[in-house]
Amino acid sequence: MEVRKFTIANAAFERSPGQDGDVLAGNVVDQRDGGPITIGYGRYGPRQSIDVTLAVDDVMVILEGQLTVSSAGRDMTAGPGEIVHMPKGETVTIRSHEQGAVTAYVTYPHWQEALP
Amino acid sequence: MEVRKFTIANAAFERSPGQDGDVLAGNVVDQRDGGPITIGYGRYGPRQSIDVTLAVDDVMVILEGQLTVSSAGRDMTAGPGEIVHMPKGETVTIRSHEQGAVTAYVTYPHWQEALP
Repeated sequence: MEVRKFTIANAAFERSPGQDGDVLAGNVVDQRDGGPITIGYGRYGPRQSIDVTLAVDDVMVILEGQLTVSSAGRDMTAGPGEIVHMPKGETVTIRSHEQGAVTAYVTYPHWQEALP
Repeated sequence: MEVRKFTIANAAFERSPGQDGDVLAGNVVDQRDGGPITIGYGRYGPRQSIDVTLAVDDVMVILEGQLTVSSAGRDMTAGPGEIVHMPKGETVTIRSHEQGAVTAYVTYPHWQEALP
């Protein structure tokens, strides 16, 4: 593999699994590249909510907007430049606010290969 | 492990290895937490340059400023919201510009355990 740079324009967004709302994920590096990690961009419309049980370790870096992640009875709200680490096995609810949100994410291993 | 949120204030910055300049790294999640990945923040002073041979897969999300990553004769300049993926085994030179830079990084496996 070679060193590569990505912008959000490189992400081919698809609806994130397990929900029928306006939450999109677009991988820029994944299992097709032969490495151990998936990298991508996430895009949340306003006032969306998804429930996820993590099949992989998932790191979100918030780039725009805000997300509130609820887990084990705690609410954590993150904005630009902040990071949320969601370890494998945890169950979370992720909510966007009025302005929606954009994230960069990294998962280990590849989330698409870990889907139930 | 539990779901956690981090800001740059959570990073205990230390000089990044292999250089004596103003390039700092501060892990917020690493081998001490028992998971597979390291997460942290990087801080580059103005006009710094470091040479690195990657012992791990390293993903940088640029949060502030700009970095130019040179590898295999190519220069890639990344700014806020852009991502640079530096696969294990690659050799890179990372340069900051006038305004320095701040990054979020994720490595697999733990970079501190892979140091020579």
